[in-house]
Amino acid sequence: MKTFQEMSREELLKEKESLEAAYHDYEVKGLSLNMARGKPATAQLDLANPMLDVLNSKSDFKSVDGDVRNYGVIAGITEAREFMAQIMECDKDEVIVGGNASLTLMYDMVCRSYTHGVMGATPWCKLDKVKFLCPVPGYDRHFTITEHFGIEMINIPMNESGPDMDMVEKYVNNDSTVKGIWCVPKYANPSGITYSDETVKRFAALKPAAEDFRIYWDNAYAEHHLYKDDQDQLLNIMDECKKAGNPDMVYVFASTSKMSLAGAGISAVATSKANREHLLKLMNAQMISFDKVNQLRHVRFFKDINGLRAHMMKQADILRPKFEMLLNLFDRELAGAGAGTYSRPKGGYFITYTTVDGCAKRVIELCKNAGMVMTGAGAPFPYKNDPHDSVIRIAPSLPPMEELEVAGQLFVICVKLATVEKLLQ
Amino acid sequence: MKTFQEMSREELLKEKESLEAAYHDYEVKGLSLNMARGKPATAQLDLANPMLDVLNSKSDFKSVDGDVRNYGVIAGITEAREFMAQIMECDKDEVIVGGNASLTLMYDMVCRSYTHGVMGATPWCKLDKVKFLCPVPGYDRHFTITEHFGIEMINIPMNESGPDMDMVEKYVNNDSTVKGIWCVPKYANPSGITYSDETVKRFAALKPAAEDFRIYWDNAYAEHHLYKDDQDQLLNIMDECKKAGNPDMVYVFASTSKMSLAGAGISAVATSKANREHLLKLMNAQMISFDKVNQLRHVRFFKDINGLRAHMMKQADILRPKFEMLLNLFDRELAGAGAGTYSRPKGGYFITYTTVDGCAKRVIELCKNAGMVMTGAGAPFPYKNDPHDSVIRIAPSLPPMEELEVAGQLFVICVKLATVEKLLQ
Repeated sequence: MKTFQEMSREELLKEKESLEAAYHDYEVKGLSLNMARGKPATAQLDLANPMLDVLNSKSDFKSVDGDVRNYGVIAGITEAREFMAQIMECDKDEVIVGGNASLTLMYDMVCRSYTHGVMGATPWCKLDKVKFLCPVPGYDRHFTITEHFGIEMINIPMNESGPDMDMVEKYVNNDSTVKGIWCVPKYANPSGITYSDETVKRFAALKPAAEDFRIYWDNAYAEHHLYKDDQDQLLNIMDECKKAGNPDMVYVFASTSKMSLAGAGISAVATSKANREHLLKLMNAQMISFDKVNQLRHVRFFKDINGLRAHMMKQADILRPKFEMLLNLFDRELAGAGAGTYSRPKGGYFITYTTVDGCAKRVIELCKNAGMVMTGAGAPFPYKNDPHDSVIRIAPSLPPMEELEVAGQLFVICVKLATVEKLLQ
Repeated sequence: MKTFQEMSREELLKEKESLEAAYHDYEVKGLSLNMARGKPATAQLDLANPMLDVLNSKSDFKSVDGDVRNYGVIAGITEAREFMAQIMECDKDEVIVGGNASLTLMYDMVCRSYTHGVMGATPWCKLDKVKFLCPVPGYDRHFTITEHFGIEMINIPMNESGPDMDMVEKYVNNDSTVKGIWCVPKYANPSGITYSDETVKRFAALKPAAEDFRIYWDNAYAEHHLYKDDQDQLLNIMDECKKAGNPDMVYVFASTSKMSLAGAGISAVATSKANREHLLKLMNAQMISFDKVNQLRHVRFFKDINGLRAHMMKQADILRPKFEMLLNLFDRELAGAGAGTYSRPKGGYFITYTTVDGCAKRVIELCKNAGMVMTGAGAPFPYKNDPHDSVIRIAPSLPPMEELEVAGQLFVICVKLATVEKLLQ
């Protein structure tokens, strides 16, 4: 079979006609499909419903730290710190358990650095220039936070072993206005790759020009495997930073949002004891405690990392067929067609489709006009600016399988049509 | 009976001896008492336990806005906005429902003003000087927030109808560096008074020199009456501000922390639609949503304002005897003794004891040395500085009645002893 690039103009025009006809068949269906956000499906949420039974009016509400229903215990109850420490592979005394969103923990972390500075350094609001490195494609909500605080964002290309570390080292080790880097190190959003051991070691060995440089390590998909026996492994960044003499250089974030309930999970940040102590002191102005009832509810439901992993395999049983269906479809319809490439993740929430340069916006526009919402073009880039206009984030989790099949077929048509249109320009 | 002031030196010395003996009897008991924080008693928390049954694995999780278990709906589910709007006496479209703490909503409000400014005004972090007015005695955690952001705090004396409004008007209407005032307008923390209608009207009629001046109206005790038939009434500040042509001038805060569970309630801020829209835009960088499962749980449990009020009367049945026991004790032992005065609140969480000038620290020290923790001396004042060293905040809610009786008796002895010591100096 010829690739689109190998086709003559006549062949392309013929393809276009046939694709437009196929597209039109979808257009008239009045579809309402959504592959935009990494939202769990109802069936995944249902798995966590029994969590709502474990604390009830007959329960005792005692944690090691006392009655969870009353005020206090700003760092989170000991049991929840132990539980999150298992997920984050660290000590419970390095953990602060937060509220229902690690995103808010990250925002607050950047915000506190802006208003009060990192461990005694000048608050960023008093500096003329603050920069963050942003491996791309990345998570749009990270970029929203840094843009919100007027922080200049610098694209760092991702390859199959993580961010381009030569570039990271060059910036971090030489530019004292570089204060942070956003990372989703495992089953990355959206590329699905996991940072190699070498990448993690090179991160840990950074010699930042700025004393208040920190790695914002958003390990959002730590336990979000699609397969039981074929799982990515991520080196422990906190351990590596300690070994490299940089114990304070990293904040690790995690949450149960995509383990228990997306809007009602618990979150955590893990970091060195020095960082943690400083954070708790500043947090004392903001709150008395997070919701400890929900913390206890989570611990009593999952019990420990083994309980959690068993639960996540049930989630995988729901997610895996969706990923595989789409990937099989792409293998049949798009592989070797000259219409771009796609990731084949073993976990996480996304497939990244990389179109021929200059086609992503058009694909998303075609999808939208036929009734299917995709993540906005450019979203995985700072300032929503995809320099090659080629990256599309596909979120297969939310739609039921029947809808996802239709969505996949429509997507294939849109990708092909946009490619042909481009080649005919 | 003679007051302490009317006693001769010899009589005072005799009193001192007898008080020291009585104090010593407590000292040797090895007591561990706590009247420091406004924490609900276990019996009060137990009243809300059935709330944990209303959402369980058999429930539907549907709100008007969709499945509460998934992401989204940043302003809170409609049902929770309606419920909080009943407590806050406003429209649901003026309400944002938050997480488990109105304190965090207040911190975040000040923080956003610091980092991004109020409705387009210069961010406070870019200004040389920002001031807040602080009616005193007041809530220590308010003062912690403003101190945290380097905001200069100005004491405003409280009288029986609220803050000294002449002074408030003078500052707000003439000094453009005055950006806010902290108010607990009903059953105030710690004085227990409720602002008069005239006070509220004068607040609403302020003509601030600063366009970004706001009233931080922490209506923490809106439904926290001790009596069914003798309740303070507070004029609606949002209505009054609208009438006075100042619709954007106030943020109203409330929470269910002392209605349902102290660590696991829901909170809300109510304000003009213009303010609210601006807030939601900024909040979008910080979060996807608060915990909507807990919002739905609250609405299904309380149902509406009537359900809530019935619940609060059950709480009053637990709190009232504690307040009355202490007040009866003070009436018997301290009224007319020349050892200070005390408030007689009809709601809220505190009794304020005002000692003879220069005695508060000593009373609290004496209490501490006999094993009883009180709120720190000076805590109800900015910078923990009580200019008369006379205000003591008493929190009767947490200890069981038997302990509270002992605590009250010990407190009486400490107050008398400190007074006598002072007069003998």
